Amino acid sequence: MEQNVKNTVIKTNPGDNVGIVCNASGLQKGAAVLDGIILREFIPMGHKVALENISEGKEVIRYGEIIGTANQEIKPGEWVNEFKINLPVPPDLEQINYTQPKSENFEKLEDYTFQGYRNPDGSVGTKNMLGISISVQCVAGITNYIVEKIRKELLPKYPNVDDAVAFNHSYGCGIAINAPAAIIPIRTIKNLAQNPNFGGEIMVIGLGCEKLRPERLMPDGSTESENSILYLQDEAFTGFEEMIDGILEMADKHLQKLNERERETCPASDLVVGMQCGGSDAFSGITGNPAAGFAADLIVKAGGTVFFSEVTEVRDAVHLLIPRAETKEVAEALKREMKWYDDYLLNGQADRSANPSPGNKRGGLSNVVEKALGSMVKSGSSAIVDVIAPGEKIRKKGLNFVATPASDFVCGTLQLAAGMNMHVFITGRGTPYGLREVPVIKVSSNSKLGDRWHDLIDLDAGPIAFGQKTISEVGNELFHLILDVASGTKKVAADKLGIHNDLVLFNPGPLT
Amino acid sequence: MEQNVKNTVIKTNPGDNVGIVCNASGLQKGAAVLDGIILREFIPMGHKVALENISEGKEVIRYGEIIGTANQEIKPGEWVNEFKINLPVPPDLEQINYTQPKSENFEKLEDYTFQGYRNPDGSVGTKNMLGISISVQCVAGITNYIVEKIRKELLPKYPNVDDAVAFNHSYGCGIAINAPAAIIPIRTIKNLAQNPNFGGEIMVIGLGCEKLRPERLMPDGSTESENSILYLQDEAFTGFEEMIDGILEMADKHLQKLNERERETCPASDLVVGMQCGGSDAFSGITGNPAAGFAADLIVKAGGTVFFSEVTEVRDAVHLLIPRAETKEVAEALKREMKWYDDYLLNGQADRSANPSPGNKRGGLSNVVEKALGSMVKSGSSAIVDVIAPGEKIRKKGLNFVATPASDFVCGTLQLAAGMNMHVFITGRGTPYGLREVPVIKVSSNSKLGDRWHDLIDLDAGPIAFGQKTISEVGNELFHLILDVASGTKKVAADKLGIHNDLVLFNPGPLT
Repeated sequence: MEQNVKNTVIKTNPGDNVGIVCNASGLQKGAAVLDGIILREFIPMGHKVALENISEGKEVIRYGEIIGTANQEIKPGEWVNEFKINLPVPPDLEQINYTQPKSENFEKLEDYTFQGYRNPDGSVGTKNMLGISISVQCVAGITNYIVEKIRKELLPKYPNVDDAVAFNHSYGCGIAINAPAAIIPIRTIKNLAQNPNFGGEIMVIGLGCEKLRPERLMPDGSTESENSILYLQDEAFTGFEEMIDGILEMADKHLQKLNERERETCPASDLVVGMQCGGSDAFSGITGNPAAGFAADLIVKAGGTVFFSEVTEVRDAVHLLIPRAETKEVAEALKREMKWYDDYLLNGQADRSANPSPGNKRGGLSNVVEKALGSMVKSGSSAIVDVIAPGEKIRKKGLNFVATPASDFVCGTLQLAAGMNMHVFITGRGTPYGLREVPVIKVSSNSKLGDRWHDLIDLDAGPIAFGQKTISEVGNELFHLILDVASGTKKVAADKLGIHNDLVLFNPGPLT
Repeated sequence: MEQNVKNTVIKTNPGDNVGIVCNASGLQKGAAVLDGIILREFIPMGHKVALENISEGKEVIRYGEIIGTANQEIKPGEWVNEFKINLPVPPDLEQINYTQPKSENFEKLEDYTFQGYRNPDGSVGTKNMLGISISVQCVAGITNYIVEKIRKELLPKYPNVDDAVAFNHSYGCGIAINAPAAIIPIRTIKNLAQNPNFGGEIMVIGLGCEKLRPERLMPDGSTESENSILYLQDEAFTGFEEMIDGILEMADKHLQKLNERERETCPASDLVVGMQCGGSDAFSGITGNPAAGFAADLIVKAGGTVFFSEVTEVRDAVHLLIPRAETKEVAEALKREMKWYDDYLLNGQADRSANPSPGNKRGGLSNVVEKALGSMVKSGSSAIVDVIAPGEKIRKKGLNFVATPASDFVCGTLQLAAGMNMHVFITGRGTPYGLREVPVIKVSSNSKLGDRWHDLIDLDAGPIAFGQKTISEVGNELFHLILDVASGTKKVAADKLGIHNDLVLFNPGPLT
């Protein structure tokens, strides 16, 4: 689609002094772009061109925000890359004041529905799966074996059940279970099992001698441990076959109940959509993320729930988020999570400059500030109603900041634990991200990737860069795609191909 | 076998003031045991009975060493459990002086051989496998898919190749790659691929935009990256099918070479045996671990290599290990690794009391000191020739301390990276531990487990507790079993059943 699109450079905000080269093969020296500027050197796709003279020490502006200061004079038409920009200091959390935003009378969206599995607790699933928790890594070899057996021997009897999955992890023993940070992985495992896609059927396989007691993984107030917890070391099992039979028997009881679930019409307000980006490039902030943000606003207007996450990728834009906090408590919670992460990184002798990745940089993202500004766009423009600490479940509908590392599968795992029933993943460089537990809609930020990975990408936001589609058009497409996939009438690429990654726990505590 | 064995209590050292109840159902109040002592209460199997009056503040002695002080008066015949013992302070690393041990003229063992796969670098494999490394977690969904495909479509063409395996992990991006601790996971991934069981055939699947560059995972000095590294983001691949074809093509080249490997007669000095215990009980230190230690000495006498590990489980016995260091440098290295771990735990607001696990305690191990004393026995009695930091490869034959967390699969993974070709795992409570990459011989420390888990346990050391077999008899059995399994003539339970756990990386650094 590029052949008719000559020398495209995008300025994301009228105040910017840099623009983004959109052409797939970059732009050559001598090319004329915005405002009659002539390129002084070759600039690759996604990278920045100076639109005015930026003298040494002067601010480089993108998205109307400072992304750093020039460490040398940059002439109009020059390539503005990571080597020419110094990283600014991050916003001082103590210095950001909060004023409650005026409550906007959002036009409410009604009449949008999807076909979901309504659960007794009111949540709605988009898949119907048996989820098996483990209390300790030692049993993961057995759960791999058992899940294969369930798929082959039991699932054919239960046509309404989509799949079975074990949440294998490397936690549960050989860990400091009394360390302050232990609460994070423990509540994550517990809340994962309560994700709406598992229909409230809890099944935990324990070993017996582990530090993490399986009882701690049961829902609060639950008394059903007899049909929910099984220990491999139980003296009732003589040998491997009896163990396996015992597990299959327990699984069968849960599958019978899950098989009774049927899809019913649910309002879009039952959507819980986790937004995430990974393998980002400079287009992510122009195309994919703004389109996701547009869809996020539609979901919130429809009364639904949206998550955005990735602490290190919003840290440098926190001064833009705090004014969006619905209450002072939410603003304080935002600061608290940022502060926790600042300390966590410092403790590991790292800092935020560890992000972005080399691929982000090759994609044109000079530093974490530019990445953050492009990343937070996917939250749309709604008020932030709550902040969810790592591993916690959501409490409110609306836009939630779910505090997670940016590490893709850790973020996805924590969003699952928080209760998401749909996942949107925006990528510029391309990653084959897929989760078995929830449908993942993959959005490409540029058509070069969208075209090449035609069977791995679900929606291409690339045409936005060339004005062939608007942000609202792609945002609307995404909204409707979310409803269709949530209903099970459309399948995402990851599910069609059967490409699924394992969940990854966030364990900030030490091993022993 | 217990019916003929009445009231058995074992004293592990003449100086001990406690003994261990061996009877599977424990011993009842009133039972007469060693030295005419009458039990004052029921004491479960594996737990300790006071053999003399231990007044408050007095030392409790097991293995001839102080395992703590009584926090109340304990009368002869009383149960000595975790609640009655205070944890002593650990040996002060600075205060342990080193004197070079007299070099003993060990009788050399010759004539023992096994059938192994000799590699160009001199190492010897006990399996013949294709190992696929990944540079980042994002590609793990693809490697799972590809390994299945290799097993079904390629392996039938290569009858000399046992299996294919992907070393999936959750590292490579979303991590602080410049944090000081990053070297640990990086060299672990790199050295895993060089384990003798993979025949030097290196194959790395990368994404393209990750922080961990696949080139860093190639062996030092290697120039063969063309046939060894593949990026999913490579523009040569249009879509999923082409990616898969590309990976299969690369795998096929490596499989052709692996298929040329044949077993040949190798001296026992080519064995590299990793010793580990997990789910320990009080018998581990009386039966399984001493038998493993006996086998360890035989292997060292035969010129082979033995690993023992688990820093937190030897920390409290380090004053007994340092005198066994072959040189002052080795003694210093031991102290350095212990110090590193002390700091690591402190940094995570944890300490060594996080070990033992509840199951260890139910099994009779009161605290980490008692656990450590029983744990280090599996190192046998040889001099310690070298200390290997987490993720490093071994440099010397003989007994090596491979510094790892005690967490079972993290320890196993680091022992694999260090180069083990055989694994011995001693358990008292029972765990279904298995690794695909190397044969794991599971030894039970008590016959109650050995009998019940008849098809999961490879060797029962339980009869030692009742004098039905001696430590040297079971140690010899284990030595010969190691040779048979290494030769491929005997299969371990985990391989027969197909129960294998995933490897787990040790990443002490932060996520971003």
